[in-house]
Amino acid sequence: MAIAKLFIANRGEIAVRIIRAARELGIATVQAVSAADRDMLAAHLADEVAEVGPAHASKSYLSVDAMLKAALASGCDAVHPGYGFLSENAGFAEAVESAGLIFVGPKPETIRAMGDKARAREIAQAAGVPVVPGSAGVIAGIDEATEEAERIGYPVMIKAAAGGGGRGIRVAADAEELRAQFGPASAEAKAAFGDGGLYLERFIARARHVEVQVMGDGTDVVHFFERECSLQRRRQKIWEEAPAACLSPETREALCRSAVELARSVGYRGAGTLEYLYNETRGDFHFIEMNTRIQVEHPVTEMITGFDLVREMIRVAGGAPLSVRQDEIAMRGHAIEVRINAEDPALDFRPCPGTVTALRIPGGMGVRFDTMLHTGYAVPPFYDSLIGKLIVWDDTRMGAIARLDRALGELRIEGIATTAGLHRALARDADVQAGRFHTRWLEERPLPTLTDTETGR
Amino acid sequence: MAIAKLFIANRGEIAVRIIRAARELGIATVQAVSAADRDMLAAHLADEVAEVGPAHASKSYLSVDAMLKAALASGCDAVHPGYGFLSENAGFAEAVESAGLIFVGPKPETIRAMGDKARAREIAQAAGVPVVPGSAGVIAGIDEATEEAERIGYPVMIKAAAGGGGRGIRVAADAEELRAQFGPASAEAKAAFGDGGLYLERFIARARHVEVQVMGDGTDVVHFFERECSLQRRRQKIWEEAPAACLSPETREALCRSAVELARSVGYRGAGTLEYLYNETRGDFHFIEMNTRIQVEHPVTEMITGFDLVREMIRVAGGAPLSVRQDEIAMRGHAIEVRINAEDPALDFRPCPGTVTALRIPGGMGVRFDTMLHTGYAVPPFYDSLIGKLIVWDDTRMGAIARLDRALGELRIEGIATTAGLHRALARDADVQAGRFHTRWLEERPLPTLTDTETGR
Repeated sequence: MAIAKLFIANRGEIAVRIIRAARELGIATVQAVSAADRDMLAAHLADEVAEVGPAHASKSYLSVDAMLKAALASGCDAVHPGYGFLSENAGFAEAVESAGLIFVGPKPETIRAMGDKARAREIAQAAGVPVVPGSAGVIAGIDEATEEAERIGYPVMIKAAAGGGGRGIRVAADAEELRAQFGPASAEAKAAFGDGGLYLERFIARARHVEVQVMGDGTDVVHFFERECSLQRRRQKIWEEAPAACLSPETREALCRSAVELARSVGYRGAGTLEYLYNETRGDFHFIEMNTRIQVEHPVTEMITGFDLVREMIRVAGGAPLSVRQDEIAMRGHAIEVRINAEDPALDFRPCPGTVTALRIPGGMGVRFDTMLHTGYAVPPFYDSLIGKLIVWDDTRMGAIARLDRALGELRIEGIATTAGLHRALARDADVQAGRFHTRWLEERPLPTLTDTETGR
Repeated sequence: MAIAKLFIANRGEIAVRIIRAARELGIATVQAVSAADRDMLAAHLADEVAEVGPAHASKSYLSVDAMLKAALASGCDAVHPGYGFLSENAGFAEAVESAGLIFVGPKPETIRAMGDKARAREIAQAAGVPVVPGSAGVIAGIDEATEEAERIGYPVMIKAAAGGGGRGIRVAADAEELRAQFGPASAEAKAAFGDGGLYLERFIARARHVEVQVMGDGTDVVHFFERECSLQRRRQKIWEEAPAACLSPETREALCRSAVELARSVGYRGAGTLEYLYNETRGDFHFIEMNTRIQVEHPVTEMITGFDLVREMIRVAGGAPLSVRQDEIAMRGHAIEVRINAEDPALDFRPCPGTVTALRIPGGMGVRFDTMLHTGYAVPPFYDSLIGKLIVWDDTRMGAIARLDRALGELRIEGIATTAGLHRALARDADVQAGRFHTRWLEERPLPTLTDTETGR
């Protein structure tokens, strides 16, 4: 069944991204807007807007009922959840399908299985994909935890089975710390995710974060190579690349093959990402979790493959088979994405909503800027601080870094503080240029000096 | 000798393009500005600006003396001429080199030889490249003209040897028209180009305009495939594509090889374009002229090859050899560029300078918008009406057309009339979508109705 009208159950730059893909497919769009979002770019670009509730996300973008009601009232035949919010909520996917609409994403049972991080590990192991040494599933109590931790080896990470996105993780260096943290971690998980289940994983220091983009149509699965997202602040990715410069061609091949095997084993449908830790010293990789949705950093993959991932996930949701075979997917050059957040580096990256008084978007060859901003737009204080993604491509990694530096110099977002200056400093950092970093690298060193780079030249 | 500081002897969007390439190479930039251009985007982006004279181009951008003086005063070591203005003025290239600066372009003698269109035909013939049947060189007078025209076959085109860019061309259907037009054509050529020399070419009706992008380092020459620029208004290109959908792989190969042979025969250095007429019925092509500079439509080639042409021409000018071999240059997908002019379609495309009160630049995957505009910018009345180039890429031609339509819908240039609506109508035209057009196609039919497409949806 081809989709004629698509409801966008999200906001911000990803809503704009989805509108663009839908329009190129000839599909009409209905943009969900909270009371705080009437003036965002997606609301101007969509064919229609539908008010879904007040500013507070729990009553709008996170409300299954509000979203479903608006989607049905709009006369759409499909719902795209974007990332975050309800995108990995199996109950929402189920409710959408029960209402007779298409959910642009995997089957609800796939979302549920992968959303349970302990269950996802089991699926990976069954598919022959290496996982980080850890407990076989959810831990029953502190005694089992201590036993398992001895077997795994300290330090261990205590992770919420229902968690994800780097949230709800604690590290225990020994049995004493494990005993002290187990109870609070469970209570925290219960409060944050509605599920107190915990599991353990070996803590791998100085690992690199690599992930594989896959796309399935329920029958076949292909991959679009990997991304590296090791540059993180507080476990949040801020700079992503494709391909991962740290991988050998053989490791890349093995990594991507493992991702396809895992996704095939669950009859995967739609866009998905399998996240791994890569140990550069040993040259091995371990699966950590799967995100059953489009990711923030998907454009770097689009830049190196020339393949429109969001368009494909909509096509597949409409019942079309995959439009490419694996041997038709090639990568060329190198792409980098940096996340521009409305945060003030001078105030410990405190979110700083406000009105954009002037905007100059970088352009030229190999430059893409995905944003929901426009001049005069007031960034609301209620949501994530991501306001734009600057993506650059060039034939080499160093060329892409030079282009990133150039494009950041062109970017002007006046009226609010942003993290653009941090990225310019990173682009000029010798370690970043040499690719010498890991997931904790940015936290283990002083932040780069922003003087004379934060405001462009 | 590597270039450290580059003087940009041009304006508008191409000046921005050059600044971007230079900056990514770590080269400082000095932007030439007339009194009318202090607020254009290039003036804001360059490291320095240099006033070169009053608004009137003859006293600024077209003045060899003013440009050279400003270039020398700026301490630069190279001059990029862009396109138009002095870019194909051999005397300017000579003056730049005599002053000890690098001219980013071919040797002056190459510019001079190719600038003489009759001489260029001879060079092409010597290199074995087919030319449109025509006179052997400049015609001495009306008697020789009549004789040559009988041999060539009517209708014939009367062309100015010093002309170019579609200007100074007349068509004669028979001997009587030839006799009537020869004298006035010579006088017109003398007035427009300072040289009354004329030559004749067979007039090919319903031809398609194809052209090959080449790059040389003085020793070797490579090509970057072809572009098709058949959609023209008043002999001015308005919509360009790469590759040319009308060519078979065999014809493409022969066409591109002929271009490389011609450019090799003159030891070509820098970026150049060989223009041909392609006869779709017969499947043959004929060389018409060579442009010894970067062209307006170069981005479509950059989109399908991933190769930065402006960066390469600066590198080569600095003494570097070509950075790619022919077998490393591949094309992928399809790109389209449309020229957005500050002209009012409702007033027969009269130029309409004015102030841009709001600007929304299209974005997303496969979209590039090269412009000199910014919000609040007053488009001056003194120069060419080109204010932006919207370039789109997708894996198929129809995909690129859908993306073009989508991107045109996002584009907002308020305060002045533009040709964006015409392009949207063309994107939705069945003949354009099927690739059924030739260089006179747009003139032979009523302009597409702009209702409900000119202002987006």
